[in-house]
Formats: sequence, C-alpha cells, structure tokens
Amino acid sequence: MPNTMLDTSLQHIDRTLDESLDRLFELLRIPSVSTQPAHAGDCRLAAEWLARDLSGMGFAASVRETPGHPIVVAHDLSAGEGPHVLFYGHYDVQPVDPLSLWRSGPFDPVLAEDPATGGKVIVARGASDDKGQVMTFLEACRALRATAGRLPIRISVLLEGEEESGDANLLPFLQANAEELRCDLALICDTGLAGDGTPAITTALRGLVAEEVTIQAARQDLHSGLYGNAARNPIHVMADLIAGLRDAQGRVTLAGFYDGVETPPKPVREGWRGLGLDDRSMLEPVGLSVAAGEAGFSALEQVWARPSCEVNGISGGYEEAGFKTVLPAQARAKISFRLVAGQDPETIRASFRSYVQSHLPADCTASFTAHGGSPACSVPSDGPELQRCLAALGEEWARPAVTIGSGGSIPVVGELQKALGVDSLLIGFARDDDRIHSPNEQYALESFHRGIRSWARILQALAARGARGE
Amino acid sequence: MPNTMLDTSLQHIDRTLDESLDRLFELLRIPSVSTQPAHAGDCRLAAEWLARDLSGMGFAASVRETPGHPIVVAHDLSAGEGPHVLFYGHYDVQPVDPLSLWRSGPFDPVLAEDPATGGKVIVARGASDDKGQVMTFLEACRALRATAGRLPIRISVLLEGEEESGDANLLPFLQANAEELRCDLALICDTGLAGDGTPAITTALRGLVAEEVTIQAARQDLHSGLYGNAARNPIHVMADLIAGLRDAQGRVTLAGFYDGVETPPKPVREGWRGLGLDDRSMLEPVGLSVAAGEAGFSALEQVWARPSCEVNGISGGYEEAGFKTVLPAQARAKISFRLVAGQDPETIRASFRSYVQSHLPADCTASFTAHGGSPACSVPSDGPELQRCLAALGEEWARPAVTIGSGGSIPVVGELQKALGVDSLLIGFARDDDRIHSPNEQYALESFHRGIRSWARILQALAARGARGE
Repeated sequence: MPNTMLDTSLQHIDRTLDESLDRLFELLRIPSVSTQPAHAGDCRLAAEWLARDLSGMGFAASVRETPGHPIVVAHDLSAGEGPHVLFYGHYDVQPVDPLSLWRSGPFDPVLAEDPATGGKVIVARGASDDKGQVMTFLEACRALRATAGRLPIRISVLLEGEEESGDANLLPFLQANAEELRCDLALICDTGLAGDGTPAITTALRGLVAEEVTIQAARQDLHSGLYGNAARNPIHVMADLIAGLRDAQGRVTLAGFYDGVETPPKPVREGWRGLGLDDRSMLEPVGLSVAAGEAGFSALEQVWARPSCEVNGISGGYEEAGFKTVLPAQARAKISFRLVAGQDPETIRASFRSYVQSHLPADCTASFTAHGGSPACSVPSDGPELQRCLAALGEEWARPAVTIGSGGSIPVVGELQKALGVDSLLIGFARDDDRIHSPNEQYALESFHRGIRSWARILQALAARGARGE
Repeated sequence: MPNTMLDTSLQHIDRTLDESLDRLFELLRIPSVSTQPAHAGDCRLAAEWLARDLSGMGFAASVRETPGHPIVVAHDLSAGEGPHVLFYGHYDVQPVDPLSLWRSGPFDPVLAEDPATGGKVIVARGASDDKGQVMTFLEACRALRATAGRLPIRISVLLEGEEESGDANLLPFLQANAEELRCDLALICDTGLAGDGTPAITTALRGLVAEEVTIQAARQDLHSGLYGNAARNPIHVMADLIAGLRDAQGRVTLAGFYDGVETPPKPVREGWRGLGLDDRSMLEPVGLSVAAGEAGFSALEQVWARPSCEVNGISGGYEEAGFKTVLPAQARAKISFRLVAGQDPETIRASFRSYVQSHLPADCTASFTAHGGSPACSVPSDGPELQRCLAALGEEWARPAVTIGSGGSIPVVGELQKALGVDSLLIGFARDDDRIHSPNEQYALESFHRGIRSWARILQALAARGARGE
C-alpha cells in the first residue's frame, strides 16, 4: 500500500470516528460479565455482535462453542502476500461492583470529560479492558478495507469470553483448532501505553495463580456473647493466615515461592530506570506515596519483575450497616499470586494450599477453589516485527515508542506459544488511570482514535516486510 | 392469691396456649430489625402492637418517642400490696442474613420439630431473642388477670427497640422518666436456662464495646496486576491488625486491657464446675471440640468470666462469585470486646483506636464508628427475692434452679441501676441451641409454655413477700 493510500485510510478513520464510537458503544452496552453466571446470555450476545460486525466487513466469521462462553473466530486471507497475523482480544468484562461508586451506568457508555486531565474519555465497564482496545483493531481493518479495497496482510481474529474468569477453555480450543489458527505472528491488544503516555510494546508480563479459600469452624453462626472467646472464630484464623503470608520485608513466605526467580538483567532494569517512573510518580496518581511491597525494589520493579501475593477479596460475618454480635461459622478470601519467569503456577498453588492446611488450628477445615493459573510469559524483546511495530507507533504518536513491562497477566501469550508455537506482540493503548476492574473504567478518546490509526500503520508496516521478503 | 387460684391460673395458661402462640406469631411477623434503617417503620409497628396488647389486658400503655425507635411503657398499679416490679424486654431483633440459610422465612414463624431433639420449636427471627421471652411475661399477666381479676403485685413494663443496635437512647429515657419508672425490683427476660435445661437466674454478665473500623489506602480500587505489590493493600493491613490483637496465648494485646480484671472467687468457679459443663459438652453441639480462647481457662470460664475480642464481620474487595483481580481501596471490620467487671468500655475503646492508629503503615488512614458500649454488670447473687424466684422456678421445672453466668451483654442492667437505683433479676428460658442472632432462630415450645407458667408462679411468690412484710 503506497503511503498516499495509508494517508487516505487515516483520513477515513478521522472522518468516520463518530461511527466507530457508535459501534463501540453498542458493544459496551452488552453486560458480558464472564464470572457471573447470570450474564452468560450476555456473553453470547457480545460474541454474536462481534461475529456479525466481522462478517459485515468481509471476514468469514463464526461463533464457536466451548464448554464455557463462546469464542469468535474470523478470517480474511484475501491478501496474497506478507505474514499471516492472528489478532487476539476478549469481549468479556469484569464485574461492576461497587455499583454505587459509578458516576454513570457501567453498561450505559458516555463520552465524558476526564476530571483529572480535562480530556475526552469513554466511560463504561470494558471501555478499556478490553472492548475499546479490540475495536481499535477492528475499526482499523474496516477503514483499510473501505479505502484500499482489501486488507494489506492475511488476518485471523480470535475473540474470547473468559479472559476475566480463568480462561479454562481457551487452551483446549487453540489446541483443537491449531491447523485453522496457524499463523506467523500474534497481535494482542490488552496492554497499555507507558506511564507518561508514550506508545509502548509490552515485553515482560507476570503470571497469575488465583485461589479462593473458605475456612469453616463451627457448624453454624454463633452468638459472640454466648460463645465468643471459647469458640474458634474463622475470621481470626483467616487474618492469621493472611498476616503470615508475607514477612516483615514484604516477601511471600510460601515454601519454594522464590525458587527459580531471577532479577531482570541489568540492561533491562536500566532501561526501566530511564523511563523516569519513580515510586512517587507511579503511586501519587492513586493517592499513595510509598512502595508497599518487597523491600529493596522500586515500585516499578515490584510490579513488573517481582512475584507477589495480594488478597483481592475477603468476607465473613456481618457486613451490612449497624452491628451484629455474630461469631460466624465461615470466612472467605480470594487470594492471588503474581508470578515471574521461573515460577510454576501449579507448584505455587500446591504450596499455598499446604501452607493453609498446615497452619489451620483445631476444629477448622479449609476448602479451596482454583480460579485459573498461568505462568509468566516470555515475549520477544527484539526482532524485525517488533522494530517495525515500534516505528509505526512512533510515527503515529510523534515520539519514539518504548518496550515496557507490566504487572498484569495475559495467559493467552503462553497458550498461543504452546498450542500454535507462535510469538505475540503486545500492543495496547490503555492508560494507567483507566481504572480497569474498578468503578468508572474509562478509555481516552485519544487512545481509541490513535489506537485505530496505529493499527492501520502497523498492518501496513507488517505488509511491507512481506513485500520486501525480510 | 391462694394456691388453688394459682392452679386455676396455670390451667388457664395450659388451656389457652394456642391463643398465646397466635399472639406471639403476630408479633414475630413484624420485621423489627433495629440496626437497619429500612425497618424503622417496622420497629414502630412492633411497639404499637405491644402497646395495644398491654392496653387490651388492662395496662395503661403508651408508645413513647425517643431520638431512635420508640419505647413502650405500661403500668398496672392496681395491686395494693407487695413490691412494685418493672419488667424489661426488647421488641427489636437482629438482622436475618444470610437469608439463604433459613429453612423458613425469618418473619414467617412456624411451629416445627427440632431436628436435634425432636421437640416442638417456634422458628423465626426474635422467637427467642427477645419477642418469645417478652411474651412469656405478658401472657402470664394476661392469665393472672383473667383468672384472679387482677395482678398479684404492681407491675410496670418497659419494652425498648434498640437493644440490638447500641441502646443509645435507653439511659437518657430512664433518667428523664425516673419518677414514673421508680420501682422496687426489675425483672429482665433476655437470658437462658442452664446448658442442660435446668432453670436458672443469671448473676454474671459481660459488658461490650463494639467498633467498626475502615482502613483506606489508595484513592480508588486498583488492578492488582498493575499495582499489586507496590500499592498498599488495606485487606493485608486489616489482617495484620486483627492478627496482632491477640497473642499466642489468646490474650488481647491492647494496652491496659486486663487492668482491674479479676478471676472470679473460688466458690463461684467451683459452683460453675459443679454444673458439669466441660469444654466438650459446651462446644460439641456446635461442631467444635477445643476451647479456642485464653489459655488456662475452661470454655465456660472463657465465656462467663474472661474478657475477649471477636471480629464479628469483615469485608473488602471482591466478594461475589468468581474472581476479580482488584486491589481494593478499603477494608472494613466490625470488632467487639466482651468486658468483665473492672473494665471501662470507653477506656477499652480508646485503647483499641490507639492500637490501630499506632500500627497503621504509610499511606493508610483509619476511621471508626462506635456501635455502643456497656460495662459488665453487677447483679445480686443472693437475697430474698432471688431465693423466692429460684424456688418458684424449681417448682415449675420440677428440679432445683441454679445461678449461672453468661457471656452475653445486657446493658440495661447497669442502666437501671444508674438511672433508677434498682437491682435486676435476670430470668429467662432460652436454650443454648436457640441460634439467636443466627439463621433458623428458635424458641422451644416448652420454654414458651413453662416460661409463662414460671412467671405466674414468680409473680405470686413475690406478692407473698409483700403480704408477709419480709
């Protein structure tokens, strides 16, 4: 595609931005919360919406069944040259609670002014994670087809609905459909810009082990006056267990937790330091000032390169307004571990369960629910495609793009490697203040608009490789 | 009242038990949950129902306003002789959650078979605590009036609606109406039988300090992948605080907590040992086996005579089905301390708040809500009225009545002493398996029936004192 054609495509993107927003808003209105069984039908609706949208722009698209939520697969292989890329995204979203903190309905998207920056933002659950990001890619494809008549390279699209709920069915699906999904490179749009808004490709990602644990003591809730002191209180037991999970230096105490964990190479750490993201600049935007985790590491290193343990939820006893002198029979906690290279999720899970069991006092039992696990993933941190994408991003955002790490987990990277033997490039446009997984999730209009333009540039840049036979 | 007249009254009670039950069920159907603002209107309905019932049997009854829920006051001073007693009870009930564990609607009372004992039980929120107990006294009054034409002694009745929600307005009300409420003795029906069903008068009661604490860290909920490890997690902070509240011996670590606390006198402890309530017999019915609290004390001593700390509720982060990798901005806990003689509630409250503040890590703030506090109360453990009531109870239940302790708190005892200078006798018919404050609260039909008969005997016995000029 000659550059004048690219310019035409970019102009088309600018001119049709309102229509692109309308489509995104339609998708955002579908409450496709994958962890909540009541929303299973909505997950299907979102999948069907996407398949229709992809079909409408010329992809051969289908909604494919899994034991869980369906997966959308679409192909447009009409381009004869260049690499074949597989684009991955997810249409499912996180739950919305606490609902009372949303300033507008989580599934009633609005274009608002960001109180912090004054910029325009799209506010809705999924605006950033991941519907908004998915649509940047789809809108780029639509614009390229509308202006050039066809896509510059062969593109397959895979959109799943269980990214936020453990991903149990993705790997089997990839394995079962490996022939159909074979490709040269995967592109994933589920990450962000660097902290200061610099365009970025993420090349370090932590893994995750998520566990839910329930401690049961008495057979029933008890009156704390009649039994308190003498009867075991599972909230105390849970507090002791959680308190014991980390030592005074912020290190996780599970047996073998740090086995195989290595500090990132010096050049990588130095590159990160060059980003100018000190503890204060990372934490101040959310009202904090001090890196709370493992002693001896900066906040950035703690998040990008060190394994950790967080309690994501806790409940037990009376939680409503007022007071109730109950001594509950149960306490529950949702606990997750972020993993780095060298840690095996199932070994960590087993070590956690063994820790809980061995610290249980008399009269208590523990039960566990696994909520998914994935190892830290290894992504190419160099190579011609990466360089080409960095260059395309740099042109769009008018400053050099960088490679960064991320504390989040994107299990699909490892699964694509395992099932298809393909490497992924993680390119996304989210910002740190997008409040993903929180009330008032947002996606900057600039992220959406420049995101679409970035993909148009990237797809053309990748085509150029094929044309020149690199 | 000659004994033949008492027999007539007791027969009347037996014959009209179904009508008594109907009235109790009517009262139980009113969801008078005092801690939940949505039920304020129901609390008023319960007060009005009781005032109507008391008026209907000849009391001069009125619903009296307070800044909170109303208080019912009623007098029947037509008896010329004997002591003037003030009966105290409460019409408010605890919240019902978790609703899913109720086998029938909490405000849809049923007469069921107790799966454990095979006996008939009344199942509803408030069946035992305290509507069922209150109605034993009112039904005894009704029967005495119906058969003897008048009450044997002067009786005033005070029924409040904030016993389960901190009792902020009771003491001011008693003080403001001290002249009207002056009496010789208070009778309180909010306690239980001894563990094995022996009739009992409670002569040792713990006090209570209830606190709600909220720990705030970041300004908003965060994604645990993007911030976990580096951003302070308030659930971890709360777990550390709770874990630190008790030492390895189960002793509360607050500064000054045990100042002034004395072990009960040897004869009292020996008397308790004579009840045959060993740890196993106390704990086995609720599925436990080991006294979990302060080392060196039996379960009975831990509950009746030692101060303690219990977490009654905890919440933070994502608590619903599935998993959400959120790093919450807040965690909350409801924590109560049971107090014994020698401990001052407000000193303990201040010590707790100071403990929390001094243990808060960087970037965290704590906020507190007081949910009431009362000292342990001192009740006469001997005296002619006590002996007379023990004798009357012994006749009804066909075995000697005993004096016992209780781990619960009945703040009104201290308030009656303070405002009116009057001692209380704590006589009740609840059983340990009544599940008060829990799902499927119940009151044995035998407790209700013999409770009514017991009060008829007690009121007559107290009249005999006056007649004989003791």
